[in-house]
Amino acid sequence: MTQRTAWLNGEYLPLAEAKVPVLDRGFLFADGVYEVTAVLDGRLVDSAAHLARLERSAGAIGIPLPVDAAGIAAVERELIARDSITRGLIYLQLTRGGTDDRDFLPRAGMRPTLLMFTQARDFLANPAVEAGMSVISWPELRWTRRDIKSVALLGQVMAKQAAAAAGAQEAWLVEDGFVTEGASSNAMIVDEAGTLVTRSLSNALLHGCTRAAVLALAAQYGVPVAERAFTIAEALAAREAMITSASSFVLPVTRIDGQVIADGRPGPITRRLRELYIAAARA
Amino acid sequence: MTQRTAWLNGEYLPLAEAKVPVLDRGFLFADGVYEVTAVLDGRLVDSAAHLARLERSAGAIGIPLPVDAAGIAAVERELIARDSITRGLIYLQLTRGGTDDRDFLPRAGMRPTLLMFTQARDFLANPAVEAGMSVISWPELRWTRRDIKSVALLGQVMAKQAAAAAGAQEAWLVEDGFVTEGASSNAMIVDEAGTLVTRSLSNALLHGCTRAAVLALAAQYGVPVAERAFTIAEALAAREAMITSASSFVLPVTRIDGQVIADGRPGPITRRLRELYIAAARA
Repeated sequence: MTQRTAWLNGEYLPLAEAKVPVLDRGFLFADGVYEVTAVLDGRLVDSAAHLARLERSAGAIGIPLPVDAAGIAAVERELIARDSITRGLIYLQLTRGGTDDRDFLPRAGMRPTLLMFTQARDFLANPAVEAGMSVISWPELRWTRRDIKSVALLGQVMAKQAAAAAGAQEAWLVEDGFVTEGASSNAMIVDEAGTLVTRSLSNALLHGCTRAAVLALAAQYGVPVAERAFTIAEALAAREAMITSASSFVLPVTRIDGQVIADGRPGPITRRLRELYIAAARA
Repeated sequence: MTQRTAWLNGEYLPLAEAKVPVLDRGFLFADGVYEVTAVLDGRLVDSAAHLARLERSAGAIGIPLPVDAAGIAAVERELIARDSITRGLIYLQLTRGGTDDRDFLPRAGMRPTLLMFTQARDFLANPAVEAGMSVISWPELRWTRRDIKSVALLGQVMAKQAAAAAGAQEAWLVEDGFVTEGASSNAMIVDEAGTLVTRSLSNALLHGCTRAAVLALAAQYGVPVAERAFTIAEALAAREAMITSASSFVLPVTRIDGQVIADGRPGPITRRLRELYIAAARA
């Protein structure tokens, strides 16, 4: 077992020893937000975008950042060094902090809890790159502020459980007939005309940092992009399908609800966008 | 400061020292459920109903109870004794437990985390009994499985913050034009005909234990009961309005969005149902 270090409210300590009071509002009320940032070649990927989103999420629920963005990035780099992470993730969680009494209404002036730790993960060796992923369609059960990256993730957990029970790796969430996003990723397809289609930004989905980066790369590479909602039927009739997320970059989706997409193999635009994303992350 | 004791995974310890690993899925994913049970005259109120709902909530997300219902009630009674609680609450939280790595998909066979602690609260001296409560109407933002009493409570926290910002104590959540429930209570009105009206049970609202007890008492007392959805306009035109919850019993609502209901004073049926509920709890 390799070393795992956590940074918790200013202190570095072994992850297995990092604890929070049970009265922390992150534990009692899911009163907190989080970010997951990839590490590739020992360096943070898209760090500025993740930190900007953290500030947006925290601001939306009124939690002040106890350390500024530059300070957070410095801690993240120190964790990468201490745990010798070459490929992996930095997980960050910010909660409103601990209380004396449990009460839905937070007190003013609470001291937030800020936690960061590393997780090793070899993105580049992911078998789904060649094999493709299976996804299921699943009813959108979540709250309506999915633009806030909150730790109130039970709906996502249930969707992942349903996917696993069906032998799949991800669930595409369907609301009013259209896919919002995956349980822990954004959803994209390449339609019959060769256009990369993904739902436009709103409160209905997370504003994925990897999503934004991939759309910019697609435009540079000459792939037409349309930001609009699509249905599962459209996805099944698509040339290609894929997910994007900080923890998986770009991965091909080759089956939805057990039905094969196109020839059942990862498509060329998906492969190219993944390569471009990795190259940009390394640049 | 009086003594506060927590029971955490089999151990009694001072509440201020009770901590959970940051890798507990309750902290990372809101992957857990909870119950709040009132204590009156040093005895649990409606304990069987709360324990039955705990089993239902835990079953809905697939978390096994590490201690059976009788064992939980025994710990609750021991906490009441240790902390000398005459009037107050027992808070109970069950999460899926801790992990080695953060992953949306839980591993099979995890050991759940079970936490209980007391909170003193003098229900009977609540000034809202005489003054009435102010509520605001607020958009229903929560997920669609509100029948599961999960700790993914950020939407409720935001509603309570909005209520407080408007000088109110509770928010009535409105979906498709109808009130679902309060942020931490069920909502009831007494309509023009003298009927006690509250939304019927579904996944759209929590199946309140106090709600059920109050409806049964109303029927015994000869108050007609209708379980149907109502609007804010109906509530404003009602004779009386009230909330029910384990932590407040029955409390009158006298203002909604700043507008006074009836003569602006707690109504007779509300008062009577509160008295009946307290008498039944003490019986």
